[in-house]
Parts: sequence; structure tokens; C-alpha cells
Amino acid sequence: MENFLSEAKASSRVFSSLGGADKNRILHEMADALETYTDDIITANRLDMVDADKNNLTSALKDRLLLDEARVKAMATSVREISALKEPVGRVLDGWVLDNGIKIEKVTVPIGVIGIIYESRPNVTSDTAALCFKSSNICILKGGKEAENSNKAIAKVLKDILIKNELPSSLISLLPDSSREGVAKLIKMDKYVDLIVPRGGEGLIRYVCDNASVPVVKHDKGQCHTYIDQDAKSEMAIAIAVNAKTHRPGVCNAMETLLVDAAAAPALLPRLKEAFETRGTLLKGCEKTQELIRTEHAGEEEFHTEYLENILNIRVVEGVDEAIEHIMTYGSGHSEAIITENYTTAEKFLNSVDAAAVYVNASTRFTDGGAFGFGAEVGISTNKLHVRGPMGIEGLTTYKFKLYGSGQVRS
Amino acid sequence: MENFLSEAKASSRVFSSLGGADKNRILHEMADALETYTDDIITANRLDMVDADKNNLTSALKDRLLLDEARVKAMATSVREISALKEPVGRVLDGWVLDNGIKIEKVTVPIGVIGIIYESRPNVTSDTAALCFKSSNICILKGGKEAENSNKAIAKVLKDILIKNELPSSLISLLPDSSREGVAKLIKMDKYVDLIVPRGGEGLIRYVCDNASVPVVKHDKGQCHTYIDQDAKSEMAIAIAVNAKTHRPGVCNAMETLLVDAAAAPALLPRLKEAFETRGTLLKGCEKTQELIRTEHAGEEEFHTEYLENILNIRVVEGVDEAIEHIMTYGSGHSEAIITENYTTAEKFLNSVDAAAVYVNASTRFTDGGAFGFGAEVGISTNKLHVRGPMGIEGLTTYKFKLYGSGQVRS
Repeated sequence: MENFLSEAKASSRVFSSLGGADKNRILHEMADALETYTDDIITANRLDMVDADKNNLTSALKDRLLLDEARVKAMATSVREISALKEPVGRVLDGWVLDNGIKIEKVTVPIGVIGIIYESRPNVTSDTAALCFKSSNICILKGGKEAENSNKAIAKVLKDILIKNELPSSLISLLPDSSREGVAKLIKMDKYVDLIVPRGGEGLIRYVCDNASVPVVKHDKGQCHTYIDQDAKSEMAIAIAVNAKTHRPGVCNAMETLLVDAAAAPALLPRLKEAFETRGTLLKGCEKTQELIRTEHAGEEEFHTEYLENILNIRVVEGVDEAIEHIMTYGSGHSEAIITENYTTAEKFLNSVDAAAVYVNASTRFTDGGAFGFGAEVGISTNKLHVRGPMGIEGLTTYKFKLYGSGQVRS
Repeated sequence: MENFLSEAKASSRVFSSLGGADKNRILHEMADALETYTDDIITANRLDMVDADKNNLTSALKDRLLLDEARVKAMATSVREISALKEPVGRVLDGWVLDNGIKIEKVTVPIGVIGIIYESRPNVTSDTAALCFKSSNICILKGGKEAENSNKAIAKVLKDILIKNELPSSLISLLPDSSREGVAKLIKMDKYVDLIVPRGGEGLIRYVCDNASVPVVKHDKGQCHTYIDQDAKSEMAIAIAVNAKTHRPGVCNAMETLLVDAAAAPALLPRLKEAFETRGTLLKGCEKTQELIRTEHAGEEEFHTEYLENILNIRVVEGVDEAIEHIMTYGSGHSEAIITENYTTAEKFLNSVDAAAVYVNASTRFTDGGAFGFGAEVGISTNKLHVRGPMGIEGLTTYKFKLYGSGQVRS
């Protein structure tokens, strides 16, 4: 493992002689190769699908895993889109001149070696490899065991293009030891690895945060809320709440708990119940909710649960302060929304709620790199530091200071 | 410990109703109180100085620890300077409008609860507390055992001003259990603590990085180099090298190893030897250096050593490529300089060397918050992420996205 990582780190130097045009040309060759070798990739994917049947994976997981010609084509298209992003390295973020005449420039640079741990969908392999290559980073990819054959086939196609271009194939690698022990070693190797990005279940992320000595940007759960204030327009409130829960219940920016102002609850809850039940949503309510509409029960445990399914908690709260209190207690700092027409209430919510994205009068479903206009995303960070919220290609860079002197010494 | 930290985290909400003017007024009251209670602080410091004698601390350490009236006055002045910094919270870093009409703002916010681990100089206590308060962060301070009485006296003065202003005294705290076990607990409390900043020896920093589940911005060693290229002006090269080593050998931006281009070495080394010896520098040279001038020996071990004393390694290298190679092997990513008049060589060095600050024709001694014009500094980060190099008050903020909608849902 140590040799493998030390070689990966050393190979990062080739990026200093690789211009943006070279990188983009190579990315296009990778995209073309993904299309050319579609059959090989699909054949490898079939092996994973056979294992998936053997291991009784849910149909949702099998759908995430499955590759067909259209999906491989989409992977290639995504790689071409990444090549079209603006060059992320060498951007001057700031610059000034000291009184002594030294000129300082703050310039973006690659992070270095990035380990990415993810699950299921094999297109993450080509997307992430392309984002890292475009930003001059080495990537060490650790996909899920269930997608092992697919990921190997995809990585081989990309690596062959590196070799064809006389570049070290270690620029894009799968973690050679993909066992739990392999991950345990990887996250301790801060001598060679500059960043770990874990995307996956709570258990994985907890394990990585507790044990890594390498810095971590985690992509943790989204325990998202929408608060309907007494000053909300009710049509808008219902439309946004329904969208936030039911548009795509399985993603991290979907709402898990709806908070309803006690002053609005008697009129609103029956209408919300009707709207949600036509979408097949299973409702769980607090005691006060259950006094107004018939639902299953929601308490402490439910308020902590990220369902990722068409299930919704409803809680009646006494105004915006109790809503904020609830969010501070149960929220995961991902995306939080208030629906109100009241300026002061909206400002209070925006300023007091500590989350990556805080909304007024819109669905939490917009928290992602695509919707934000970042072009492509590594994921959605629930870190507070380095990158918060949607992590675009800029999140794969850091900066250094360049200082241009003419003989200055310090006195 | 858990109660203490949970209370600290909860108290952070008071900052949302505390304006910049309030914070600045309170900081001025703190500065005044430091002056008013100078005698109490000096009395406490005497206890530490007595212990320092008992424990045979070096005179350098005792000088760092000592407080007198002038030094307490300087602490107060520093707090007033921090109050005069531009408000760091609520700055709009970026903003745009999505096609669907949602307006996005990227705005600076406090990090939350910050644990700072440091040694010796008691002025760090008031500086750090003031920087955290100004940026609306809760600070948990863990100073060195040798300064315990001084730090307690300083913290008491600051906390009394919080109480006088009817604010929770938990906004500024010393870690109640300052033992190794206390630190071990603190760095695992990611539920309550958002950032750990360790400033100190390699052992402490290694321990924190290996064991923390809280994100870390480390202030690690400075293994800094200056490379004198064959195209350097020799007068400038000698002046910069002497300044980088001897101006203040005990700080992290001082040079530890001088790299000299083989083409320049025969003419330059005798002059460098003379210049350094008039400053009392102990020279250690590689084999090639020792063929040209008389020095002690420098090898593998010396190249890894951060002396923090008036001792310098000299190594003769074959041009800029070998210089970069040496820096990549032994450098700590802090500050690195090249002295040259050659444009292409300078650009190569600037772009290839991976460090927080990379210089052409200036002394590495300029890498600090004061010299960079940041006004006050938390320290000098050797992290690659969040903050790299001098960490000003902006480094104590992160950001969130505010999204202003008018009923948008995702389709």
C-alpha cells in the first residue's frame, strides 16, 4: 500500500507539464474510449448483476448498479462536459502589493492525492476520475464491492488512455486492497494522501471521521426540514412541501420533517394530508399533529431518521423560534427552508439556521452542483470547512501564495 | 466535559443578536480591563515563573512566559487592534441568480466552537479569545501547563467582562481538564466542536492529527529552504540567505537549509561562509559543500531537522530541478524561496514547488499574517485545506448559501 501511494504521489509532478489543452484532449479520448469499449464494460457489469441477484440486492440498488449502452454513453457525455469546464488550476483569487514592494498572488493549485470512497453507481468512477484529472489531482478510487467488476472495467479504459499518452497510469487508480483493512490503511496515510472524500452511509462516514489522519470532506446525511410559518401563502407552502418530499425521496436534499406553525396548523394540516396522500406519502405526526389529522406517530427517534423514502414526519411548533430550535437539534446542516411572506421572520431564519443551504420560499431539492450551476459535482459536502454544500470542481483545488520580490529582507 | 462543551455550543446563539458595534465595545472593555487588572495578571504570572525556575525551563522559554506591565499593555493594544478589524461575518463572497429566479448568496458565517491548543506565551490567550469573539466563535483554550496561572488570570478578566455584559461566560473558556486525557476527549467531540487548531511541537500535532475526529488546521513545523540559482545576483543572494536564517532563527519561517547551484558554489560558498560566520551561524555542509568550504557535516538527518536555532545546512545541487526535488523530499510545505534573475527558472520554481508561500528574490521571513497585511493572525497553517499559510481572522469563518425564492419547486 505504501509503495502504491508513494508512487501515486510522485506521479503528480507530471501535471506541472500538462497544459489545459492536453488535459482536455485526453479527457475526450477517455470519453471516446468509454464508448468504444461499451461491450467490455457491460460484460463486466453483468458479472456484478449476477452477484447482485445472488446477494438479494434490492431492486433500487440493482437499478443503481445496472449499466446499459445508454448509461455508458451518458458516462462518456459527462466526461466531455467535465473537459469543457473552465481550467480550475492557476486562477488568481486575490493579489496585492506589500509596502516593501513584494507582489503577492493567491493562486489555485491542485490538492494533490485524493482518496474517494463511494458506493453503487459505477458512473461515479468515470465522473470522479475525470474531475480529478481535469483539476490535476491524483485520484485513488474505492468503489463498492457490489460494483467491483464494473469499476475495474471502467478504470482500465481510462488508464489505457493515460498509457497511450505516455502518462503514469497511477494518475487514476482503484485502491488495490478494497477490503475494510485497505480503507483503514488509506485513511491513515497522510504522508501521501491529502484528502479523503467519503460518500455513503452513516456507518462508513463515522468510521472514516473517527479514524482518519488525512483531512476528510464528508458527504453525510441530509436531515432536511421545511418550516411553514403562519405568514406563508398556503398554496405555495403546500407545493413546496410536496416537492421537497416527493420529487425524489431517495436523495439527501429531500425533506424528512415538515414543521408547521401552530397558528397555521388547523387550516393547513388537512390540506397537507390530502396533498401528500395523493402522492402516496406515509405521514408520521407529533401529538399536536395527531390532534388535527390522523397519522402514525413521530417522536424523538423519527425526528433523527433520514428515511430516504416517501415517509414524512410532521411536527407542530410555536413559531419560528421553536422551528429553529428543532432544526438545531435534529438537523444535519444540509438544507433547511422556511415558507413565509414575513420579512423579519425570513431574515431571522436565514441568519440563525446553521446549514450549508438555507432557503426562503423554495424547495430544498435545489441543493446540488447542477442546480447551483457548478457544472459537475463531486458530491454535497456536510463539512463546515474547505467546502460546504455542493462541491464543484473548485472544491478539488486549494491555493498557494506566490511572492515576487526584488531582494527584500525583513528588518 | 460533555456538559461543558454542549453548553459552549448552545451559547453560540447569542452571537446572532450581537452586532459588530456591540462586539467592538465589549472588546474595548476587555482591553481596558486587562490594563486595570495588570497587577493581578502579573501576580499570577509570578507563580508560573517560580514553577519555571523549579522545573529548570530554558531562559528562552522563561522569556516567552514572562509578563510585565509593558507586555500586558501590549496585550490590551492587540485586543483593541482586533476590534478595529473589518467585521468578518456576513461578508457576501459571491452571488448569482439561477435561471428559475432563485437568488443565491454565499455569505461568511462563524465556524462555531473552536478548540485551540498552544504553548508558552500567555498573550496568545487574549489574542485568540479576541479573534474568536470578533468572529462570533466560541473558543475553548488549552494553554501550556507552564502558563496555567497566567492564562487563568487573563481568562478571568475577559470572562468578567462577558458577565458584566450579561453574556454567557462560556463564550470564552479554558479547557477545564487540561491534562492529556482532557485533550484526548476534546479532539473526539465533533458533536460539539467544529475545529481544532494545534500550535506546538511535532509530537502534539502528530497526536492531534492521528486521534482527532474534529477537523484540524495544524500549525506545524517550517522546514524552509532558499535556493540560490546560478543566475542569481550574488549580493542579493547573500543578503537574503543571511536574513532568512539569522533575522530570527527561532521562528517557523526561518530558513533551515540553503541550496546552492553547483555552477555558483565555488565563487559563492566562501563568501556565504564569511557572511554567516560574522553572524555566528553554525554551518553544516553536504560532501560537495565540504570540498569547497570547511563546515560540519549535513546529511539525511540534518536535512529533516528544524533547528529553530542559528544553525544552517548547506547543500550543493545540480540546478533548479535538483533543488525542487530536495524541497519536495524534505520541505514541510511552509515557505520556499529561489534567488534568480532567470525568468524561466523562476516560473518553474514558483509553479512546481508545493508550499503555502513560494518566493522569488525575497526572504522567507515574510510569511506571517502581519507581513501579509492580515492585521492579526491565529497562526501559520501548514494544512493544505481550509486555510493555507498565514491564518487571519477570515480563517475563523466559513460560509453558507442563502437562497431567496418565490415559490420555486424542482421539476
